[in-house]
Amino acid sequence: MKLGLFGYGNIGRGVYKVAQNLDISYDCVIKKVFDLPIKKAELGDKLVTNIDDIIEDPEIGAVVEVLGGHDLPYEVITKCLKKGKSVVTANKEVVSMHLEEFINLAHLNNCSFCFEASAGGGIPVLRPLIDNIKVNEVNDIYGILNGTTNYILTKMDEDNLGFDEALKLAQQNGFAEANPTADLEGLDIVRKINIISSIAFKGNIKNDDIYHFGVSHINKEILDHIKELGYALKFVASSKRDGDNVLIRVEPTMVKPNHPFATIKDEFNAIMFNGSTNGDLLFYGKGAGPLPTATAIISDVVSILENRSYIHFKNERNLVVNKGMKNPYRYYIVDKAGNGVFKNNVNDSELQASYFYARVLD
Amino acid sequence: MKLGLFGYGNIGRGVYKVAQNLDISYDCVIKKVFDLPIKKAELGDKLVTNIDDIIEDPEIGAVVEVLGGHDLPYEVITKCLKKGKSVVTANKEVVSMHLEEFINLAHLNNCSFCFEASAGGGIPVLRPLIDNIKVNEVNDIYGILNGTTNYILTKMDEDNLGFDEALKLAQQNGFAEANPTADLEGLDIVRKINIISSIAFKGNIKNDDIYHFGVSHINKEILDHIKELGYALKFVASSKRDGDNVLIRVEPTMVKPNHPFATIKDEFNAIMFNGSTNGDLLFYGKGAGPLPTATAIISDVVSILENRSYIHFKNERNLVVNKGMKNPYRYYIVDKAGNGVFKNNVNDSELQASYFYARVLD
Repeated sequence: MKLGLFGYGNIGRGVYKVAQNLDISYDCVIKKVFDLPIKKAELGDKLVTNIDDIIEDPEIGAVVEVLGGHDLPYEVITKCLKKGKSVVTANKEVVSMHLEEFINLAHLNNCSFCFEASAGGGIPVLRPLIDNIKVNEVNDIYGILNGTTNYILTKMDEDNLGFDEALKLAQQNGFAEANPTADLEGLDIVRKINIISSIAFKGNIKNDDIYHFGVSHINKEILDHIKELGYALKFVASSKRDGDNVLIRVEPTMVKPNHPFATIKDEFNAIMFNGSTNGDLLFYGKGAGPLPTATAIISDVVSILENRSYIHFKNERNLVVNKGMKNPYRYYIVDKAGNGVFKNNVNDSELQASYFYARVLD
Repeated sequence: MKLGLFGYGNIGRGVYKVAQNLDISYDCVIKKVFDLPIKKAELGDKLVTNIDDIIEDPEIGAVVEVLGGHDLPYEVITKCLKKGKSVVTANKEVVSMHLEEFINLAHLNNCSFCFEASAGGGIPVLRPLIDNIKVNEVNDIYGILNGTTNYILTKMDEDNLGFDEALKLAQQNGFAEANPTADLEGLDIVRKINIISSIAFKGNIKNDDIYHFGVSHINKEILDHIKELGYALKFVASSKRDGDNVLIRVEPTMVKPNHPFATIKDEFNAIMFNGSTNGDLLFYGKGAGPLPTATAIISDVVSILENRSYIHFKNERNLVVNKGMKNPYRYYIVDKAGNGVFKNNVNDSELQASYFYARVLD
C-alpha cells in the first residue's frame, strides 16, 4: 500500500523516519508528502503542494495527517475518508471536535480512521481501552496528559527553578511551544480527555463543557508549601461517569508521594482507568515528541495494513457533562499572599476566583 | 460462535462470569465446560467430563484453557488447534515451554492461539508489545510480575509484618497458594518473563536458562536496613538483548522511592519496556485474580470474534541466554548476621552463596 503524508514539520519528519522501520513484507512506502514549496529541497519529487495530488491519487490507500490546526486538517480528513482512503491522525483538535463524524465516514466508505497518537502521544492507550470496554465498563479515568506542564512542574520541583525559568527550559528543550497558552491553561488536556472519555463512555462530549483551570499561577513558594504538606503537584484530568452524567475536570492536583502519578516525571504522561472487572490499569510513556508520536502513528498504519483497525463509534448515551454530577473532591485553596486552606464542597466560581488552587487526591 | 471452557476452578468461574458481559451482537456463549463430575451441581448439562466432548464438537469454534498444570493442558491445546479450534489460555507453564509450537500449529490450521493472560494476568501487555515490535525494537524489559510476592513485600513494609505473617495474610486473602514455593522462588516470574522476552526478542528461550533467586530469606531487619539506605525492595525480572545475546534475571531488587516500581503495591504488577523510537512504556494493573485474568481472556476471545487475533511467532534469532552478556548491575549483599555491603562485578555463585541479596537499580 502507498501512503500519503500531510505535513512535514517535526512530527511529519518523525513519521517519515519511523515508516522506514516497517518490515518490507508490508510493501508500504510514503509516495507523496504535502507541504509548502519551501520543503522542496528536503523532499524533492515526493513533495506536492496541492492536497488533491494525494486525495485524487488512486494508488494511495491511506494517509497520515499531521498538519496541525483545524480547517485544512478537517478538509483533508473528510475528503480522504469519502474517497475510501484510511486516515491516521495525531490532531487532538479535529479529533476531539469531529470524532463521531470521522469514524462514521470511515465506516460508510469502508476504510479506517485511527487516532491513537491524538490522545496519548506515544502511549498506546486507545487500543487497550477499546478492547477493555468490550468486556467491562470503564467509568473512572485519570490522566497526566500534557508533557509541557509535567516537565515544568518536575523542573520546578527537582531543580528548584521558578515558573518562568522552567518554562524557558521547556521551550529550549523542545517540550513547550513559543506560545504555551494552550498547554498552560489545560486546553490541550481538555481535548485529550475528551477523546478518551468519548470512547470510554460511548457518547459525544464538547470541549467547551469540560472544566479546566491552568497552572500558570504556580510559584516556588506555593510548590514548597504543597511539598511540606506531604504532596506532589501534578496537572491532572479526571473523568467519571454515572449513568448519563459525566464529570470531567482538568485542574492542578495534589497527590501523595506513593501515588503512581507522583513518579511520572518530565515529559512523561500517564493514563489510569478503572475497569469494572479488572480494576485499575495504568499506561505510562512519552506523551509527546516526534518519534514517540510517530511510533503511535505507524502502529496505527500497521493495524490498517493488517486489516484490524476498525473502530466503531458507539454513540449509545446522551452524555450530560458537568451538570448533574456532584464534584466529590477536596481542595487546597491559596490566596495571593500564599496562604492556603483545605476545603470540601467548593463550587467552581469560588475555585476560579482563587489565586491558585489544587484538587487533593488522597 | 460457541465456546468450550476447560477448567472450572477460580479462574474458570471468572471466565464464565465475564463472558456474560459480551455484547449479544457477538452471539458468543459457552456451550460446554470440562471439569470433574463433582461440578455437576453447579454446571448441570453444560458439564462434560471427557475432553473429546469439546474437541470433537464441530459447533465449538474456540476454547478457553484454564486447567493449570502441564500434561492435560498440552494435550487439550494441541488437539484443539489441530482441529482448527482457536485457543485462549492463561497457562504460563505450557505457554513458556511450547509457545512457538502452539503459534505455528494455529497458523497451520487457520485458527488462533492467544495467551495475553499468561504473561500479565489482567494487564494488557502482549498486544501493545506485539504492536510495538512491528515499528521499533524492544531490547530492555523490566517487570514486577508476581502478585503474591509483591503483596508480601508491601505488607512487610507498610504494616510492619514479618515474612511468615505476611505470607499467611496473603494466603488468607487469596493472593498466595497453599504451597507458595513457585511464587517465592521466582519460578512463576521466570515463565512470564520468558513469554514476554520470546515475543520481544523473536526467539525461543528455555525456562531453565533464566537466572532466579527468591525472596523467602527476606526479614524485617533486612527490609528496614534497605529502607534506611533509601530504597524500596521489589522482586523484579529484567531482560536485555544485545545481538543474539540475552540476559534474563529474576531477583530481589532495590529501587529508589521515585522509581515507578516503588509505587506498585499489593497484588498489582507492572511491566516496563523500552522501545528504540518511543522510549519507556509502562503498563500497570492487577497481575492475577479471577476477574482480571478472565477480563484478559475474554479480550482475547473478542479479538478472535473480530478476526484480529493472529499472532505470528517470528523465530528470527538463535538466542543465547545468560552466557555471552556481562551482568551490568550493582548488588547489595547481606550475610546471616544482617550486615550488608554494596558490590559491583559480582558473579552468580557469590550471589547464590549469600544469605540474601538485592540488585540495585539507581
